[in-house]
Amino acid sequence: MTTAEFVFDRWAASHQQRIEHVLSRVLPEDTALPPRLHAAMRYAVLGGGKRVRALLSYAAAELAGTPVLTADPSAAAVELIHAFSLVHDDMPCMDDDDLRRGKPSCHKQYDDATALLVGDALQSLAFECLAESQAPQALKQIQVLARATGSRGMCGGQSLDLQSTGQQLSLTALEQMHQHKTGALIEAATLLGAYAANQTPLPLINTLTTYSRHMGLAFQVVDDILDATADSQTLGKTAGKDARQAKSTYVSLLGLEAARTLVNQLHEHTRALLAPYGQAADPLRGIAHFICERSF
Amino acid sequence: MTTAEFVFDRWAASHQQRIEHVLSRVLPEDTALPPRLHAAMRYAVLGGGKRVRALLSYAAAELAGTPVLTADPSAAAVELIHAFSLVHDDMPCMDDDDLRRGKPSCHKQYDDATALLVGDALQSLAFECLAESQAPQALKQIQVLARATGSRGMCGGQSLDLQSTGQQLSLTALEQMHQHKTGALIEAATLLGAYAANQTPLPLINTLTTYSRHMGLAFQVVDDILDATADSQTLGKTAGKDARQAKSTYVSLLGLEAARTLVNQLHEHTRALLAPYGQAADPLRGIAHFICERSF
Repeated sequence: MTTAEFVFDRWAASHQQRIEHVLSRVLPEDTALPPRLHAAMRYAVLGGGKRVRALLSYAAAELAGTPVLTADPSAAAVELIHAFSLVHDDMPCMDDDDLRRGKPSCHKQYDDATALLVGDALQSLAFECLAESQAPQALKQIQVLARATGSRGMCGGQSLDLQSTGQQLSLTALEQMHQHKTGALIEAATLLGAYAANQTPLPLINTLTTYSRHMGLAFQVVDDILDATADSQTLGKTAGKDARQAKSTYVSLLGLEAARTLVNQLHEHTRALLAPYGQAADPLRGIAHFICERSF
Repeated sequence: MTTAEFVFDRWAASHQQRIEHVLSRVLPEDTALPPRLHAAMRYAVLGGGKRVRALLSYAAAELAGTPVLTADPSAAAVELIHAFSLVHDDMPCMDDDDLRRGKPSCHKQYDDATALLVGDALQSLAFECLAESQAPQALKQIQVLARATGSRGMCGGQSLDLQSTGQQLSLTALEQMHQHKTGALIEAATLLGAYAANQTPLPLINTLTTYSRHMGLAFQVVDDILDATADSQTLGKTAGKDARQAKSTYVSLLGLEAARTLVNQLHEHTRALLAPYGQAADPLRGIAHFICERSF
C-alpha cells in the first residue's frame, strides 16, 4: 500500500463515519409518527454501503475549497436518493432481490407497501435536506439532483434497463442505459459537492463532469465484472443475476479482459485529468482508485 | 346559481385549462428517451381530475397579489406530486385499484414496474420544476412541498392508513392520518401559491394555513361521504371500497348526518375567515364551495 492510499483510507473512513452521523440526524427518529415507516427508512439507509456517492460529494467539495460542513447536505441528499433507488429496485415488480448490503432487503424486512413508501419518502427527504441547508447554490443543487433522479436520469435508466432485459444491446445503448441508471447520480453527487461552495468556477465544473462520467462508467463496468466473477457473500447482494436474467453487460458485450482494460483506461484518463490539481484532488484520486480497483 | 358561482366556474375552467397546458409543457415529450416511461408519465398526469390542488395554488397566488404566471410552477409541482401519489396508491401492493379518473390506472395500462418509476420520476419532476422557476421564494416552496410529501406528510399518512386498515380508529387518530395523507398536500398547494409572490406577509400565511386545514378536512369528509353514497361511474374510481376494506371513515365514526354537519361547519368557518379579504378571495371562496358542496 502506498502512502497516498493509506491517507485515502483514513480520509474515506472518517468521511464514511461523518455521513453516517449526518444521515442519522437527517432521518426522523423511529419514535416519530409514523414509527413503522420511520424505522423502515432508517433500516434502508443506515449502517451499510461504501457511501461512494457521499464520498464523491465530500471530495468534490474539498477540491472546490469549501469546508466539509457545507457538503453535509449534498452528501446526505445523494445517499438518500441512492437508498431510495435501492429500496424500489429490490421490490418484486422490479429486480425482486431479497438481499441488500448483506441484510434482507427493505420489502423483505417490512412489506412491499412500506418499501414503496420508504423510497418515496426518502426522495422527498433528500430535497428537503438541500432546501433547508440555505446554501448559496442550493437551488442549483436541487435542479441538478432532481434532473439526475427523474425520467431523464436514474428513473429513466431503470426504465431502459427493464426494456432491455433479454435483449442483446449495442454498446451505445448499454452506455446510454447506464449513463442514466447509475452515471447521472454519480455525476450529480460530484457536482453537488462542488456547488456546496459559495461559487464554483466553470472549468472546475467541466473537470468534475468529465471525472464523474469516467467514474460512472468505470463503476458500472466493475459492477458487471464483479457480478460475473464474485460470490454473493463478497458482494453483499445476489451475484450472477445478470447472466441468469440474460442482461447485456459490459462483460457479455466486451468480454472479461476487454472490460478490465476499459476500466484501466478510464482510471488512467482520470489520473491525467486530475494531475494539475495537486493534493486537493487526492480524495478524488483515492475514490477513482477505489472504484477501479475493487477486488477483481 | 349565484353570480359569484358563475364567475368561479369560469375562473376554475380557465385555470384548469391553464394547468393542463403547463403540465403538458413541463412533462417530457413521449418521444424523449425513454419513450415508454415518458408516455406513462403523461398518461398518469394529463387529461384528468379537477385539479383542486392547482386551483388552490392559483387562488392563493391571486390573494397574495402575484401574477398568475408566477404560480404556474407551484400549480404544476403540486399536481405532479398528487399524480405520483395516485399512481403509487393504485398499485397492487397498496390499494390495488384498477380504475382512476375513469381510465385504467397506470399499472393496469402499463405495468407495475413502469408505474413505480412513473411515480418516482413525477416526484423528481415536481422539485425540478420549482428549482428551475428561479422564483424569489423557491427554496421555501421546495421546503414546504418536500415536507408535505414525505414521511411527515403524505407518505406518512399512507403508512398510517395501511396500519389502520381493519382497525377501529379514534376520531383523533383518523384526523391525524388524514392530516398527513391528504391535508398536508392541500396545505402545501395553498402555501406554495402564496410563496409564489416576491414576499408573503405572515398574517396571510396564517389565514391560508387555517383555510387549507379546513379544506383538507372537508375534502376528506366529503370523500368518505361520496365513497359511501355515490357509484363508481360518478366518482371515476371504485366506490364503496372503504366499507369493504373495513376502514374507519368519518362516515363510519360520525354517521352520515354528523359528517355532513361537520362539512357545513367547516364551510361556514372558512367564509368567516375570508370575509376581510374582499373580492381577491373569491377564488378561494369558490374552491371552498366546490369542495364542500360536491354532489351529495
